[in-house]
Amino acid sequence: MDTRKQKVLVVSAHPEPRSLNASLTDFAVERLRAAGHEVRVSDLYAMKWKATTDADDYPGLDAGARLHVMGASERDTLAGRLTADVVAEQEKLRWADAVVFQFPLWWFGVPAILKGWIDRVFTAGFAYGPEVAPPYSHGPLAGRRALVSVTYGARPGAFSDRGIHGPLADVLFPVQHGLLWFTGIAPLEPFAVSGAHEVPEARFTEIREVYGRRLDALFTEQPVPFRTLTGGDYDHEMRLVEGREDAGADGFALHERGLG
Amino acid sequence: MDTRKQKVLVVSAHPEPRSLNASLTDFAVERLRAAGHEVRVSDLYAMKWKATTDADDYPGLDAGARLHVMGASERDTLAGRLTADVVAEQEKLRWADAVVFQFPLWWFGVPAILKGWIDRVFTAGFAYGPEVAPPYSHGPLAGRRALVSVTYGARPGAFSDRGIHGPLADVLFPVQHGLLWFTGIAPLEPFAVSGAHEVPEARFTEIREVYGRRLDALFTEQPVPFRTLTGGDYDHEMRLVEGREDAGADGFALHERGLG
Repeated sequence: MDTRKQKVLVVSAHPEPRSLNASLTDFAVERLRAAGHEVRVSDLYAMKWKATTDADDYPGLDAGARLHVMGASERDTLAGRLTADVVAEQEKLRWADAVVFQFPLWWFGVPAILKGWIDRVFTAGFAYGPEVAPPYSHGPLAGRRALVSVTYGARPGAFSDRGIHGPLADVLFPVQHGLLWFTGIAPLEPFAVSGAHEVPEARFTEIREVYGRRLDALFTEQPVPFRTLTGGDYDHEMRLVEGREDAGADGFALHERGLG
Repeated sequence: MDTRKQKVLVVSAHPEPRSLNASLTDFAVERLRAAGHEVRVSDLYAMKWKATTDADDYPGLDAGARLHVMGASERDTLAGRLTADVVAEQEKLRWADAVVFQFPLWWFGVPAILKGWIDRVFTAGFAYGPEVAPPYSHGPLAGRRALVSVTYGARPGAFSDRGIHGPLADVLFPVQHGLLWFTGIAPLEPFAVSGAHEVPEARFTEIREVYGRRLDALFTEQPVPFRTLTGGDYDHEMRLVEGREDAGADGFALHERGLG
């Protein structure tokens, strides 16, 4: 893969244009462009992104018909009649070689506006489902990679292996493995800024240095080695076959292959 | 505790009033009322709940001022000038002895409209922060319990201990421990309906029976035995002290005490 001049979509979710998150988004866009990449930005607040999935998202739904979300989603995706805002984001995802997510961790997850981007854009028939490629390594968005960049207020110890919030990788597993890897996108280790409610300028300089190196390695870093559905690791109920795990692996880490 | 005639808030998030989720909400309301409890419902779609946190949520914010979400949230909470929709939900939470959540698991998390209810209602100064009681067992909403009831499309094996999505309890840890327990609310084991895209009437009858027993035990069942911050289990960085874990415990389960 030519690691120069790739296409990167940056998805950003913070209500304040002068926030730490907005600064990190601006920094990423500049850094990636300076490296020769083509960059597009989905600034969800600036776009006034509609967060809530409802019947308006499925123009093909008959008036008065019962809304089955997955069925309506797949039908309108395959018929090419999703709403323009969703189609535009799907096109950006198809266009991109990598996706960078920038958001504050609110209540241990993505802000509602970003959850609404996920809920509405990753439709059946686009991101998953019987009509498209099977999930995980061969998924419909395979060949892409992602870097999740978050800010949080706690100290890093609280998100460590024995930390009360659990390891950050586990807190983000629904995004990293459940969303990205499921659709075929290979996520890198997340990038995180702790103590984000107060970041003095000197510390922000250090943060930019570390984040800059992560962005420079966006196309060369080894993604999280999540397992594939092919190759016999899982049984027909999608459970990891006994004995397949790495020595000492447990919890969500069962679903990673050792790199050793 | 008198387990009869308690107050229960049911928070429901599905766009279709004829959906399985809406049926489960209706069933829960009827069952709880028949048992003598007082029940209030927050049907987020019917309420057209505003999902997205933005500057409009903080009437005390000066025009043009930079929005620090946590700071603005705490300032307007303590000054009693939050928006009426948020104040109403906070009053329901204060009123309730138990909260039942009903939602479809979308991309391994709550739908955006429910995330927006969490993001906007659980303000600093109400649910956490230096001006209120410390988090976890003594948190500002202590004395309450919660039952999270979800539907998902996969087969249950995929959410088992070795399942590719991880155990359901781990997928819901950000809600169960990160949100509920953090604010003092003691969560019960979640209730889940698998294969939710197609539930024939005979199976729905069985589901109601099982769910009915869970609802009957809402005030008597043992909550998930999450650890407290007091008692020396955690160090000053909020990491579990070495050796405190139960034999064989790992991952998020480190943060539970054995009941044996």
